Amino acid sequence: MRFTVEKTESTARAGKIETDHGVIETPIFMPVGTQGSVKAVEQRELADLGAQIVLGNTYHLYLRPGVEVLKSMGGLHRFMSWERPILTDSGGYQVFSLSDLRQISEEGVTFKSHLDGSCHFFTPDKVVEIQRAIGSDIMMVLDECTPYPCDHNYAKLSNELTVRWAKRCQQAAQKLPAAYGHHQALFGIVQGSTYKDIRAESVKALVALNFEGYAIGGLAVGEPTESMYELAEFTAALLPNEKPRYLMGVGTPENLLECIERGVDMFDCVIPTRNGRNAMLFTRHGRMNITNAQFKTDSNPVDEECECYACRKFSRAYIRHLFQVKEILGLQLASLHNLTLYLWIMKEARRHILSNDFASWKKSILLQLRDGS
Amino acid sequence: MRFTVEKTESTARAGKIETDHGVIETPIFMPVGTQGSVKAVEQRELADLGAQIVLGNTYHLYLRPGVEVLKSMGGLHRFMSWERPILTDSGGYQVFSLSDLRQISEEGVTFKSHLDGSCHFFTPDKVVEIQRAIGSDIMMVLDECTPYPCDHNYAKLSNELTVRWAKRCQQAAQKLPAAYGHHQALFGIVQGSTYKDIRAESVKALVALNFEGYAIGGLAVGEPTESMYELAEFTAALLPNEKPRYLMGVGTPENLLECIERGVDMFDCVIPTRNGRNAMLFTRHGRMNITNAQFKTDSNPVDEECECYACRKFSRAYIRHLFQVKEILGLQLASLHNLTLYLWIMKEARRHILSNDFASWKKSILLQLRDGS
Repeated sequence: MRFTVEKTESTARAGKIETDHGVIETPIFMPVGTQGSVKAVEQRELADLGAQIVLGNTYHLYLRPGVEVLKSMGGLHRFMSWERPILTDSGGYQVFSLSDLRQISEEGVTFKSHLDGSCHFFTPDKVVEIQRAIGSDIMMVLDECTPYPCDHNYAKLSNELTVRWAKRCQQAAQKLPAAYGHHQALFGIVQGSTYKDIRAESVKALVALNFEGYAIGGLAVGEPTESMYELAEFTAALLPNEKPRYLMGVGTPENLLECIERGVDMFDCVIPTRNGRNAMLFTRHGRMNITNAQFKTDSNPVDEECECYACRKFSRAYIRHLFQVKEILGLQLASLHNLTLYLWIMKEARRHILSNDFASWKKSILLQLRDGS
Repeated sequence: MRFTVEKTESTARAGKIETDHGVIETPIFMPVGTQGSVKAVEQRELADLGAQIVLGNTYHLYLRPGVEVLKSMGGLHRFMSWERPILTDSGGYQVFSLSDLRQISEEGVTFKSHLDGSCHFFTPDKVVEIQRAIGSDIMMVLDECTPYPCDHNYAKLSNELTVRWAKRCQQAAQKLPAAYGHHQALFGIVQGSTYKDIRAESVKALVALNFEGYAIGGLAVGEPTESMYELAEFTAALLPNEKPRYLMGVGTPENLLECIERGVDMFDCVIPTRNGRNAMLFTRHGRMNITNAQFKTDSNPVDEECECYACRKFSRAYIRHLFQVKEILGLQLASLHNLTLYLWIMKEARRHILSNDFASWKKSILLQLRDGS
């Protein structure tokens, strides 16, 4: 994997990540395909709308279809028929947010499946092994994602464990080669809750291990948005310039813009698809709940300027109707549209960084996005 | 509307129906888009897979989005962004199958909505008025669809009422012109339950009214399949050669082939989409429940010979996984595939009628479809 910073404007960066499955232009938003499918969106539609990389989830894919199926099908790219890059998180976050009765030790984490209560044990070696079976272009280390709030002592000890696990993941990846002939990068994950001293320690320890990229984890877990911005900025500034920076699980269009400005290159979030399925549509001029009565006979597209299939072909009134009568097509169109809008924002952000007017563009687009003006 | 029989082979017919929204080549299967959407399939996908006409449902569209919305949006074609022909049933069937507390009189039928219990009154005039607001290329008369079994006396009286309603629908259509500048044909519906004498009376009375086409109603309501074939054959034979014949609500691929042979031109049924959403896939070599464990690592497409997106790009194992984890994409791919298979059968049937070897082809394809050989 090769990362190049093409241009910076203050701390904002435009770059490219070259993988064996193609180039990712940053800043990038990665649609979330937890179980090997971006919900309600076809792979050919993802490609059409310009998705350059999608996310898969190690915890979910480990439970279903399972490592043996993934291996026998030649990895996730072939299984889901997606030829572009894939990033997988390590499953750490899901173990801590979805499963029951998790027990953490130096060795790893024992948890019960949220599906059937069956007992499982994730170690650093194990999550690398699973991600080798998945064949993701970017793998993530096993980490403990601390909840918010979290006391300083716990956050410190937890981060130290995360760092030790990161090192073990790296060693495991060195021992267990990639399975499908393409390179799989491994990213470290910075933790430290809301404590700058721990974040700094985390960065220092991880950078010493020389990962191919660094994620900022443990944010967007309930802390105030301003804290999130401050910690993302603080952490990004400590990270090496020559490596990609990935802020996990963030966020709204506004969050993305603020964090691009603060030096983040990569984002993932379920908001565009999940909110879409709940009838919440993002537009260049604010958000709309498409089920509102005001759209009953509104023949305008969701977003005049949007070039997605939903906006080119259908009215707000029709999409509202689809949600009213619970037609699956409503979920499809809303997801398509929101992802298109997200990717448009990222593309524009990149364009403006390259032309050195990101800051002023960001100011105007934020006003538009927030106020619908 | 103009109907031309291009070729017959025994009683099987290949023809074309010319409408203001384009030509429909018969025999034809019409995907069902009850509420203005063929469930889980995009309109551009319907066009791609060769759907020449889709069905809308008067009862459902009347309840939601309602006549005022449809009118203000310029009719169903524009509302749902579908430029090819649309047929709407009259709502009669749904009134009798879905709604509560229906009360039938000479005037029409009073019923309570299955959605909110609100009270509504459908008359022949009313269903024409609704279908004018929808703007379907082919409208259906209001009928009473008798249940199975049904005693001779009730079937006779019911059919006589259906015939009187048919006449009133025709008069209503003459009084109330089409709203959107394109012609809307009106089809009569033959009833008579399982009684040939009543079916014959029904045909005679309706043909005297000179409809632009005739549907065979009241079948596929629980009678033995052999009865359905016999009654379809009997009724089709009585209908005028120069008008299209539409067998409502039928059926499986086998049913379609048998009824094409017996002289039917048009079909609609929820089976391909509904069964698809329940993981039942039709193939050229039999049916499969894609959730079966045998497909866990099956890297073959659902149907080798099928050219749909699901079969070109995905394995049985992946589609099985999508159903296992309840991903919407599973519903999308299964619906796409089943509709593609249905339309392929109709296209092949037509091709073989045109080349005068339908009977022998039908025999071999039926063996394949049934036995998976």
